[in-house]
Amino acid sequence: MKIVLLGSGNVATHLAKALKANGEDVLQIYSPNLENARSLANQLSAEAVDDLSHINQDAELYIISVKDDVIEQVAASLAHVNGLVVHTSGTTDIQVLASHVKQAGVFYPLQTFSKAKDVSFLNIPLCIEATDQTQLSMLRQLASKLSEKVYELDGQKRKVLHLAAVFACNFPNHLYAMANEILQENDLDFDIIRPLIAETADKVMSNLPENVQTGPAIRNDETTMSKHLGMLESKPEMKHIYQTLSDSIKLTLK
Amino acid sequence: MKIVLLGSGNVATHLAKALKANGEDVLQIYSPNLENARSLANQLSAEAVDDLSHINQDAELYIISVKDDVIEQVAASLAHVNGLVVHTSGTTDIQVLASHVKQAGVFYPLQTFSKAKDVSFLNIPLCIEATDQTQLSMLRQLASKLSEKVYELDGQKRKVLHLAAVFACNFPNHLYAMANEILQENDLDFDIIRPLIAETADKVMSNLPENVQTGPAIRNDETTMSKHLGMLESKPEMKHIYQTLSDSIKLTLK
Repeated sequence: MKIVLLGSGNVATHLAKALKANGEDVLQIYSPNLENARSLANQLSAEAVDDLSHINQDAELYIISVKDDVIEQVAASLAHVNGLVVHTSGTTDIQVLASHVKQAGVFYPLQTFSKAKDVSFLNIPLCIEATDQTQLSMLRQLASKLSEKVYELDGQKRKVLHLAAVFACNFPNHLYAMANEILQENDLDFDIIRPLIAETADKVMSNLPENVQTGPAIRNDETTMSKHLGMLESKPEMKHIYQTLSDSIKLTLK
Repeated sequence: MKIVLLGSGNVATHLAKALKANGEDVLQIYSPNLENARSLANQLSAEAVDDLSHINQDAELYIISVKDDVIEQVAASLAHVNGLVVHTSGTTDIQVLASHVKQAGVFYPLQTFSKAKDVSFLNIPLCIEATDQTQLSMLRQLASKLSEKVYELDGQKRKVLHLAAVFACNFPNHLYAMANEILQENDLDFDIIRPLIAETADKVMSNLPENVQTGPAIRNDETTMSKHLGMLESKPEMKHIYQTLSDSIKLTLK
């Protein structure tokens, strides 16, 4: 399939490499920053483009993978193409595209991407949507080549999923960072806590999290919690987070 | 080594099985609830005991693995034994034992244990402490047979580690549960978000969390954050947590 990729960030980079590895024909990488476009395009033998008026008009699929607030602006430049135009955003309505282009869709990979770390697409949930059944079927075929987990979700469900992802990914990572801050200030290495983080995630691969909660709050162990709050006396922000989350865990006690 | 285990909870259960698997001689399992003691003792060909006055006096090691607030009471019953008496608590001072028994130590496995899930001890950080160098050396030997990660930590560092563990394990698990609540209310299965949870943890196995933070807060994406807060309008507690953690992530922005 002939594909143009508009964007050169984390999602665009991982997606482009996965498409290429699956034998798709990535024609162009667009970025307003030519250096960024080149850096990714060179890895794919694609053309780097920094001008929206130079986008190839004959591709079958245009993937817009840019910051949410510039999706519409990029879409407006694709008004005349006949191919399907999709974005990769969890929160942006398909209508933002549909009001500008002929064929609109969504191709949202539910994963956290960092350029520093490779990730296999095979296990990444791909959430797809399209205004037209033929296009949806084409997206489904493409997605199924990349991943074993393809979900057809409307915009409402996709937004719910994106919100859940903040709770399941972004917030836990920030709490890992706080744990590391506590450790570093006491000359303890983050490495000591890595097995615990791995096991905490692994436990919910085969259990529901509400059934495997551990720690002082779920035991209603006030002695330990007040010791911990005392240790956080000089860190009011962390102390507030400790209190807020412990109170919330205690609310789940029967 | 002849070992008596006082306790039959999650930590005691996993520890007893690991000791047995490593060829140690677990003589007795004590629990005030005889059924609980029996259930574990039967798996280890050990004796079940529900009376502290029936504890074998000739063991080399007594492991107290009970709730923090009853450790001292159990320790008091071991005043006359010559073996080393350790507890497995992250927050309890070694002095709580030392004021009652002849030889005191700590054997704290930094992991989250649920009876429903087996876990290999090989990768679990074991934090040890003892009032006597000979006893410390004996504990180090035992710990090294069970795990590749043995740390000699004083009480102060152990308490810091326990606090960090709440941030790295108990709080993230509660956030997973909140993600599941959001999903379930919208007829989405928790399974859709499992790969994201796994990757979020996996990312910090080779990176520091503060270097791989993603999501709307770290992008200072106010549009997405206010959409999310709007979706949580009917859940004031979750909304408060979303706001609190997002604010805290934004504070890390340079």
